[in-house]
Amino acid sequence: MTLEANNPNKKSWLPVSKNSDFPIQNIPFGVFLTKDDIITIGTRIGNYAIDLSALHQLGYFDGISLTDDIFLQDTLNHFISDGRKAWRAVRSRISEVFDAENPNLKNNTSQREVVLFAMEEVEMQLPVLIGDYTDFYSSKEHATNVGTMFRDPENALMPNWLHLPVGYHGRSSTIVPSGTPVRRPMGQTLPKGADKPIFGQSKRVDFELEMAFITTDANVMGEPVSVDEAEEYIFGMVLFNDWSARDIQKWEYVPLGPFLAKSFASSISPWIVTLDALEPFRVESPEQNPQPLPYLQQTGSHSFDINLAVEIAPEDETPTTISKSNFKYMYWTMAQQLAHHTINGCKVNSGDMMGSGTISGPTPDSYGSMLELSWQGTEPIKMGNGTERTFIEDNDTVIMKGYCEKEGFRIGFGEVSSKLLPALKSELT
Amino acid sequence: MTLEANNPNKKSWLPVSKNSDFPIQNIPFGVFLTKDDIITIGTRIGNYAIDLSALHQLGYFDGISLTDDIFLQDTLNHFISDGRKAWRAVRSRISEVFDAENPNLKNNTSQREVVLFAMEEVEMQLPVLIGDYTDFYSSKEHATNVGTMFRDPENALMPNWLHLPVGYHGRSSTIVPSGTPVRRPMGQTLPKGADKPIFGQSKRVDFELEMAFITTDANVMGEPVSVDEAEEYIFGMVLFNDWSARDIQKWEYVPLGPFLAKSFASSISPWIVTLDALEPFRVESPEQNPQPLPYLQQTGSHSFDINLAVEIAPEDETPTTISKSNFKYMYWTMAQQLAHHTINGCKVNSGDMMGSGTISGPTPDSYGSMLELSWQGTEPIKMGNGTERTFIEDNDTVIMKGYCEKEGFRIGFGEVSSKLLPALKSELT
Repeated sequence: MTLEANNPNKKSWLPVSKNSDFPIQNIPFGVFLTKDDIITIGTRIGNYAIDLSALHQLGYFDGISLTDDIFLQDTLNHFISDGRKAWRAVRSRISEVFDAENPNLKNNTSQREVVLFAMEEVEMQLPVLIGDYTDFYSSKEHATNVGTMFRDPENALMPNWLHLPVGYHGRSSTIVPSGTPVRRPMGQTLPKGADKPIFGQSKRVDFELEMAFITTDANVMGEPVSVDEAEEYIFGMVLFNDWSARDIQKWEYVPLGPFLAKSFASSISPWIVTLDALEPFRVESPEQNPQPLPYLQQTGSHSFDINLAVEIAPEDETPTTISKSNFKYMYWTMAQQLAHHTINGCKVNSGDMMGSGTISGPTPDSYGSMLELSWQGTEPIKMGNGTERTFIEDNDTVIMKGYCEKEGFRIGFGEVSSKLLPALKSELT
Repeated sequence: MTLEANNPNKKSWLPVSKNSDFPIQNIPFGVFLTKDDIITIGTRIGNYAIDLSALHQLGYFDGISLTDDIFLQDTLNHFISDGRKAWRAVRSRISEVFDAENPNLKNNTSQREVVLFAMEEVEMQLPVLIGDYTDFYSSKEHATNVGTMFRDPENALMPNWLHLPVGYHGRSSTIVPSGTPVRRPMGQTLPKGADKPIFGQSKRVDFELEMAFITTDANVMGEPVSVDEAEEYIFGMVLFNDWSARDIQKWEYVPLGPFLAKSFASSISPWIVTLDALEPFRVESPEQNPQPLPYLQQTGSHSFDINLAVEIAPEDETPTTISKSNFKYMYWTMAQQLAHHTINGCKVNSGDMMGSGTISGPTPDSYGSMLELSWQGTEPIKMGNGTERTFIEDNDTVIMKGYCEKEGFRIGFGEVSSKLLPALKSELT
């Protein structure tokens, strides 16, 4: 399928630097707050945030079936509910309005003043009200590494892992946008060799390099979504840092899975890049052996070639890149995850978020967590300033970046960046 | 603390039968749809649904700080956000308006016509928009039974169980009110002795007898709620049937916990009974040994004596009571659950729901699931019509009831009743 908005030769009349994640072919969706305290839905080209509610009011979306206030919202949920046809029409129209060949808005100074904001002038918000958040565990390399460390290297993968995309329900209320600081959690841990837990701050705070997709209303309760239709219900993707407290996790997670070790925070990049914009970067996912059950079988290219990197910046220092991975390593595709999630009739709504699970590549420099990079703290990672890290330290900022690139043409996600604050002082011991 | 609304001698001018769950001392909150397709927040006395938005418009809540549309909502979330002082003032005023001694509304026929509906004339809705749903696992008897069956009778409880209220995140999107049918789920299971899973309908659909509490906004992200303050943030309770597919659960749940085995449906009773109304039925919870860590320590009475029963009604047949249990058996209290949930800084919002976990008593006739009642299907349960059950069969209706009673005075929850529909026919095998 070819979308004119994806034409790599198209240029915008807005300036876009060579390595920008946001050329006119991207057109992501997000929510921002202006200096005048107005919240609006917007998109981004180069370093400009574009107010879509202003564009709509000026008539630039005439002819597309949209309610008057569809962009005057503090979340994208209603727009996402409008479905793929609407997303595509809006993205296509934005592409036309900002095309270098189109003089209409370009030459209208007063209109440009209400539509365009420098990125420095706006504050990005959480783009969706997340009804339910699910986290999968779909990187074979990550599951193998964790199984090797915590269980048995000879049987690192659990018996179910190759037959279904293992996942669990996560906490929606603590998903925050890039830039929101995260506090080191307190909790119970079991010291090595002890028979009773202690209370205190987590000493093993970790990131998890993930991506997440955001869905539209996909089904009615009781009816599954087929794997072939699943991509129709995926609006787009973001970078996702699934903050984890490994010591809390180890003590709490048997038998019902991770709980407080993950629910203190997850951070996302604020611009949702649509599946349409990622279309030119489709690749096949790894071969699946054994072949999955029919409801999970797919042919064709259902993964995406997205370069990922993780950096750590100690306070007031320049960041050090500590991992480079790629979304294409994922064993299970997003369509398989969504088909599996609904095979029991579970209802999926507009604004639901589904995380990939930690994305680890095949080599040690492509692992997606400190747990793996430092191999449970036994192999410290060197930082540019000469210090070492086994887990994340107070006031470190963790930055994740992601972009697709092909023949000099780049579509990116920007970044998700969040600082770890020291734990609250507490009287409780 | 004594609340006048709880005075057991008070009578209403509305008729209330002797065994009603809804005397004037209850005053639960819910959302209902009238025959004229109007959705409103309401309460219930006897067999009357009472439209609180109509009462508010008529001035009956004058003097209480409430927005004009607080009851003209399709969920209770905003009212719950108003906090305990507002809930208490509204409940107290309703108690006055319907007091047998108060002639105002009683003698005003035209006002009564817009305020009162026979329960048969209204359709109860989901009372809250559930942001996040958490399920705990806080009955020692249940955890011991499950541990004995699935793991090791000598070490039935996991090492963490006595130190923290084990819990996990559940799926909000499929929580439905009493009366909504539930479809038998499809999914993957591993047949006994097989080395590969098969796809098909679950053959072990089960209920779980639980109660759930609904919270108000309790904290800001990063800050815990103390165990002593926790009850301030609990609005009230409902009956909760956590539908479960045991065969799907067994195959999928290691290592991240239950997922599709639980997310196809959970059913709740539609009236939220406030903690204030339950006040006269406070009891101490079971002694905790070992003593928990300080952030979980409590003194006083923090559980409630709530009689619970489960019935199964085969299609067109009368129900058979198959279990009688009590909320007071819970090892961990709601306040401990909420304190633990937020100890890592996890944010709790208005409308969040937290399930108790299956409530099993000490004797086999008080177990809270078919898994335990039929001991994994090995000891079938006799039904009144001569048939037997090991798990739930197609077109069975599962009914849960709950009430407190003391010196002839009763506060109840009504029921949660839901029919299991046959699985969808599927081409997928």
